Amino acid sequence: MSFNTQGRIFRFTTWGESHGPAIGCVVDGTPPGIALSEKDIQVWLDKRRPGQSRFVTQRREPDAVEILSGVFEGRTTGTPISLLIRNEDARSKDYGDIKDKFRPGHADFTYLQKYGRRDYRGGGRSSARETACRVAAGAVARKVLGRRVRVRGAMVQMGDRAIDRSNWDWKTVGKNPFWCPDETAARDWSEYLDSVRAAGSSVGAVIEVTASGVRPGLGAPIYGKLDSDLAAAMMGINAVKGVEIGAGFGAAALSGEENADEMRMRGGKPVFLSNNAGGILGGISTGQDIVVRFAVKPTSSILAPRRTVTVDGRNTEISTRGRHDPCVGIRAVPVGEAMMACVLADHLLHHRAQCG
Amino acid sequence: MSFNTQGRIFRFTTWGESHGPAIGCVVDGTPPGIALSEKDIQVWLDKRRPGQSRFVTQRREPDAVEILSGVFEGRTTGTPISLLIRNEDARSKDYGDIKDKFRPGHADFTYLQKYGRRDYRGGGRSSARETACRVAAGAVARKVLGRRVRVRGAMVQMGDRAIDRSNWDWKTVGKNPFWCPDETAARDWSEYLDSVRAAGSSVGAVIEVTASGVRPGLGAPIYGKLDSDLAAAMMGINAVKGVEIGAGFGAAALSGEENADEMRMRGGKPVFLSNNAGGILGGISTGQDIVVRFAVKPTSSILAPRRTVTVDGRNTEISTRGRHDPCVGIRAVPVGEAMMACVLADHLLHHRAQCG
Amino acid sequence: MSFNTQGRIFRFTTWGESHGPAIGCVVDGTPPGIALSEKDIQVWLDKRRPGQSRFVTQRREPDAVEILSGVFEGRTTGTPISLLIRNEDARSKDYGDIKDKFRPGHADFTYLQKYGRRDYRGGGRSSARETACRVAAGAVARKVLGRRVRVRGAMVQMGDRAIDRSNWDWKTVGKNPFWCPDETAARDWSEYLDSVRAAGSSVGAVIEVTASGVRPGLGAPIYGKLDSDLAAAMMGINAVKGVEIGAGFGAAALSGEENADEMRMRGGKPVFLSNNAGGILGGISTGQDIVVRFAVKPTSSILAPRRTVTVDGRNTEISTRGRHDPCVGIRAVPVGEAMMACVLADHLLHHRAQCG
Amino acid sequence: MSFNTQGRIFRFTTWGESHGPAIGCVVDGTPPGIALSEKDIQVWLDKRRPGQSRFVTQRREPDAVEILSGVFEGRTTGTPISLLIRNEDARSKDYGDIKDKFRPGHADFTYLQKYGRRDYRGGGRSSARETACRVAAGAVARKVLGRRVRVRGAMVQMGDRAIDRSNWDWKTVGKNPFWCPDETAARDWSEYLDSVRAAGSSVGAVIEVTASGVRPGLGAPIYGKLDSDLAAAMMGINAVKGVEIGAGFGAAALSGEENADEMRMRGGKPVFLSNNAGGILGGISTGQDIVVRFAVKPTSSILAPRRTVTVDGRNTEISTRGRHDPCVGIRAVPVGEAMMACVLADHLLHHRAQCG
Repeated sequence: MSFNTQGRIFRFTTWGESHGPAIGCVVDGTPPGIALSEKDIQVWLDKRRPGQSRFVTQRREPDAVEILSGVFEGRTTGTPISLLIRNEDARSKDYGDIKDKFRPGHADFTYLQKYGRRDYRGGGRSSARETACRVAAGAVARKVLGRRVRVRGAMVQMGDRAIDRSNWDWKTVGKNPFWCPDETAARDWSEYLDSVRAAGSSVGAVIEVTASGVRPGLGAPIYGKLDSDLAAAMMGINAVKGVEIGAGFGAAALSGEENADEMRMRGGKPVFLSNNAGGILGGISTGQDIVVRFAVKPTSSILAPRRTVTVDGRNTEISTRGRHDPCVGIRAVPVGEAMMACVLADHLLHHRAQCG
Repeated sequence: MSFNTQGRIFRFTTWGESHGPAIGCVVDGTPPGIALSEKDIQVWLDKRRPGQSRFVTQRREPDAVEILSGVFEGRTTGTPISLLIRNEDARSKDYGDIKDKFRPGHADFTYLQKYGRRDYRGGGRSSARETACRVAAGAVARKVLGRRVRVRGAMVQMGDRAIDRSNWDWKTVGKNPFWCPDETAARDWSEYLDSVRAAGSSVGAVIEVTASGVRPGLGAPIYGKLDSDLAAAMMGINAVKGVEIGAGFGAAALSGEENADEMRMRGGKPVFLSNNAGGILGGISTGQDIVVRFAVKPTSSILAPRRTVTVDGRNTEISTRGRHDPCVGIRAVPVGEAMMACVLADHLLHHRAQCG
Repeated sequence: MSFNTQGRIFRFTTWGESHGPAIGCVVDGTPPGIALSEKDIQVWLDKRRPGQSRFVTQRREPDAVEILSGVFEGRTTGTPISLLIRNEDARSKDYGDIKDKFRPGHADFTYLQKYGRRDYRGGGRSSARETACRVAAGAVARKVLGRRVRVRGAMVQMGDRAIDRSNWDWKTVGKNPFWCPDETAARDWSEYLDSVRAAGSSVGAVIEVTASGVRPGLGAPIYGKLDSDLAAAMMGINAVKGVEIGAGFGAAALSGEENADEMRMRGGKPVFLSNNAGGILGGISTGQDIVVRFAVKPTSSILAPRRTVTVDGRNTEISTRGRHDPCVGIRAVPVGEAMMACVLADHLLHHRAQCG
Repeated sequence: MSFNTQGRIFRFTTWGESHGPAIGCVVDGTPPGIALSEKDIQVWLDKRRPGQSRFVTQRREPDAVEILSGVFEGRTTGTPISLLIRNEDARSKDYGDIKDKFRPGHADFTYLQKYGRRDYRGGGRSSARETACRVAAGAVARKVLGRRVRVRGAMVQMGDRAIDRSNWDWKTVGKNPFWCPDETAARDWSEYLDSVRAAGSSVGAVIEVTASGVRPGLGAPIYGKLDSDLAAAMMGINAVKGVEIGAGFGAAALSGEENADEMRMRGGKPVFLSNNAGGILGGISTGQDIVVRFAVKPTSSILAPRRTVTVDGRNTEISTRGRHDPCVGIRAVPVGEAMMACVLADHLLHHRAQCG
């Protein structure tokens, strides 16, 4: 996992900037013989695509993916799969102001510090646009995992408004623009986010991603743990500031009796009576649902003016116009799912390598 | 970062089981010419060493480190540094019960699922004893970072009892057995943990690790981000279930205006007026303090009996006797510091590679 | 170095098949601020391009490279550089016969054994067409190395006809279609290869690649040695069956006195009086010219009929028509140069990481 | 494959200097459940051990290996296997002269150039003593490969004296101190090497290593080819200057008809009628014997005086006394075998990961 490559065996390398001609990724290590078409990938890209509701950026991108290699007669060949997505709606003229000023909370300052130069157009490489490549790779990863494994995400908190978990209904998730599993919360969020948007502000979110049907035994001590890799994968998504597994930060407040998931035999098989572990013990999957949550900070590009400095060192203010997400957490849901799928696919192959 | 190796350029590989003859690590990629003696490493190992107060495991281990290679005439040569720590107090006879039963919340079940066999003595490879190697590697990493960089950790929550951050005093940290920066909280925790221990229970914790003096520009988009690597490093520590950077999960509840750290020129240099980012933007260090927190679950090995199953599939109960930590979070403080130092050292060298 | 990725810090990932829509590579780890245009890359691709003389395949490919990312306002930004080359002359209909039969000496059999399926069109992923990506990456590597380092290749043997090294003239290399440094040999080879071609046969070659101006100290013991990486890089080029450094296999026949390059002070600096080491001692560059030679086997795709079997297990014969290289070693010269440049660039950055 | 680590999935990290307290390696990625004892490793170490005949260094090292982790109740657990070999006969006092002078042909100069300092005692890290760790790792690799795979090495040329391949008899190999498969050549070499030794000189060699019983399909295009990894592995052995597969450099002189191994059905299975490919096509194993040869240069540490310079820049001469190998190629035979085994084990696991 280095630079622009994620994974060890199932690994993908992404490239591209927000306002260049295209973005893309190369997915390597895919087992041969898997049925794969552009349609299999497009369906997931469409979930992340901008412009689908008034709550996300209005940039118009079809995000149509092209498979350039690695698939022959409808099946993977085991060679690298090159995926290309053209940038269609790159209106560079919008970005004059961010050329000269650092947007607080954005990577403008650090890219310049590191590299001594930066592609300022739309955030360049640091743009959330890159996450389309993660989703594309995730679509391939899902194929590697097979149908037995089901990866699903949902938004469980917008701003300071958490869902009522007793209302959780996976069917609700696809029926509102927030991937919210609580119908009541979704209605509330709709009004809330309208007011945030109207105020030229933005708001954070917490996303939960679950994987069911994962076999026990995936993961590897001590520095290739499944939870360690999931933490890296989620924390690497733009704007993410926290990751937790199972009971997560809540586990700190539990007693040892409460936290440790008890076991019983059921139908001849050992089962757990709770899942504070989030499906992972000692860095290895237990067979229970893998449960990961991550916190997304509010979009830094907001209309409300903020104090900042210019590239050449003068105090100023910035008010970011343009087409931004009032709650970038919404589009992080399919991205989180994709990262979960990629990490699991990698560990599945890794496990097969060592343990057959 | 694979299997038992952490890092890319500054990288270490650890080995060893709780009740084998020894544990150790091989630290590779260290720059040549750095003054390094066993004393430089021992001082940090002594912080993590068991048996130092009634609040940690009573296993008696001197944790004396031997340097077997990579240092010549008191300085690193650039070749791998092999560090060895002997296991002195491995009373295998204590562990009869855990041979046949899975301890809830422990890696016993998953190791067996993955490998089909396990060294059950003291948890084998999954024992927190392995973290001594992390601390040893961290001591070398600190030398690589130099004196300008200061890495410090503290416990900020025990069970559901958080510190009062307005009481924070780094000087207090070394004066209580909990690495607690709040004198009042430390007194409270002492009583609290005594009662937990008396009840045969255990309790979780939240640790905060800070690095000051880190130059801006460390980290690498998109899959070698500094925060992503820190998340992996911390989540990989035994019993950790959550990691957050800067405002962390709290960022979800902030507005865009509140969250984005504003900037101003001070003495000719750009400074940030707050640090919600925790010193990292776009995966790259800003020059502010790097701030990471992680949640440690309560020790799973407790005296209170818990329902479980046997290796051969019968329902039973387990009550873990032996020498355990009522709050394993205490000893996680020096481990978290070590991981921070290792990740930063790796990124420092990585940055030098690409950007000179 | 895994799968389709070469290098550690300066690393590139290639993708694409002979008869797919395009081939390409993603070059990662390039330092920022380097002037880079498509022209800088095209000049090297043109050296490798097919159809330039009657001695190479007549496939008509402009091999025009497009930079899709990583360059902004004419300079590298430090983010991944995506390079794309379209396949223009992919006449799939030519390849009916190789769909059903294994070409002796070709990867047809092994790809099918490994993956259970294969893109048989033009050899698919195993086609020498992939080497265009190596050359493109090599062009970026040359930029990383800077002008002080000069990487040059030459063909020193065609079939059993070696050059007379006393005739060596670098200026001659660009003046004949074989990159031959010996004008007399070049004339001889021209006639020779005409006869080989007329006979529907093919012939092997030995290529020598030299790098001048390489600073001492590049390389890393024990498993990241410069010569070890060069050996991997050259052996990985299609059709290569042997690699040697400096005196190479000839060193086996030397005495210790003859082989060990003596040293003397010259102008206050230590110099070597010979270069049997080929510029590398203990896996680390000495500052002398790096000298690598590799053997290229004769093209397996020949007109002369050979005994083989069909995919479904019947004895048969095959005679490969189509557009092949009678001496594929010719086009291996720029490829070998590119691999040398890539390995050196990677080690330059690696050295900077550890040793500053 | 970086720094001091070899391999991707089956990977080992070595450490230690010639005159430090010990050397060792950590073998990671071994499948669980494999029977493994110190005896299994010792048998191979004994093949490489110094002092076994008058033709190798007289340093007295028992090379007794200790397993410190990763094995429980006689079987591998899947966790890292730490192997330790103590240095018993490190007479540092012998090495006064090489502290101040560079030995021509040795790594003294380049280590100092790279690191600015070096452990000059016995060559430090660059000593052939490190190869004991390779042999130890190779012993584990053989266990991973299982009994079906047989890895055997032989010396096929000493100085300019090649064996007569028609005399090849594997049974002869263990019956002479040179691992020579040609009884006549062995007798000749004995006299020859005595004269070389008497003259205070040294001589090179060519080693051939063969692996039988390797299943087809191991290897991975394009930058993880089996031959590419073998080339790196062999070239990384101390004093190796050339590597070839199958017909190797000889392939350059063959015609396409001669070189391409024809195929026929035999007993319902495709077989090859020759093995110029050395068991590898397109970087993937064919199922035939894997055949690798490598050239070892003559030992640089010789009694005959050679011109050199001092560390502080004066012209001088050096005559290396001490306990050296007149033909270091002899002890390279078990080392080459070990590297073959390690590369094959890694690729076996790698293949299982991707292709099941």
